[in-house]
Amino acid sequence: MQYDANCIFCKIVHGIIPCAKLYEDDDVMAFLDVNPVTYGHALVISKAHYSNFLATPKDVMNKVMNVAQRIGQVQMEQLGAKGVNILINCKEAAGQEVQHFHVHVIPRYKATDGFKLELKQLKDVNLPSIAAEIKEKL
Amino acid sequence: MQYDANCIFCKIVHGIIPCAKLYEDDDVMAFLDVNPVTYGHALVISKAHYSNFLATPKDVMNKVMNVAQRIGQVQMEQLGAKGVNILINCKEAAGQEVQHFHVHVIPRYKATDGFKLELKQLKDVNLPSIAAEIKEKL
Repeated sequence: MQYDANCIFCKIVHGIIPCAKLYEDDDVMAFLDVNPVTYGHALVISKAHYSNFLATPKDVMNKVMNVAQRIGQVQMEQLGAKGVNILINCKEAAGQEVQHFHVHVIPRYKATDGFKLELKQLKDVNLPSIAAEIKEKL
Repeated sequence: MQYDANCIFCKIVHGIIPCAKLYEDDDVMAFLDVNPVTYGHALVISKAHYSNFLATPKDVMNKVMNVAQRIGQVQMEQLGAKGVNILINCKEAAGQEVQHFHVHVIPRYKATDGFKLELKQLKDVNLPSIAAEIKEKL
């Protein structure tokens, strides 16, 4: 299993740093975020070290997403959440703080809780031209 | 295939509403968001109508995530993005606007672009107690 001795999530996987564990199997681990933005804010990670979502093999990524889905369902059933946000930040430019693939599963209770997205719409975009740029390499 | 005649994404899937299409196979479709927050902001959806991520069968959800990953990789390679955010909003309380499962794939270029997360940390939480609540139903 890929391991980075300087990675805080690798240390959690190997029991060097403790966590409030929710789930573990051969490939996936889930635990509560120590800096939760809402009640029950969970992280789901690959146990092997991959630097981010884009760099994770599809089979492992799918296993992580399946656990994320189940945890979101339980947050609704058990914690009384009214909604859930799934957030994956890839690379520092996107706000990734630990460079080990992880998925935030954030239960939502009301509009004024700790998770707020500020979206500013991009103006004057040529969608067909951007689509062509992406499709060229897809 | 599950279809909701009032759903804007079902109308896109069936060609009733046009889109800047990026990708399509039997189960998955990807196109550019008409209200992009950054250059290349894409949506990946299941072609069948499922109300949100939590309600989507795992095999379909995994196919959607695989396409989302590939599009994120291409945004980095082709558009010069420095990072990517993957965002899935489940239910209106989490900001879901179209009640048909979709994944936002948002390329990031600089900290001041159109995507901004404001996170407020929750205080005084008992992580082991919350973990026990979730594990009971997992």
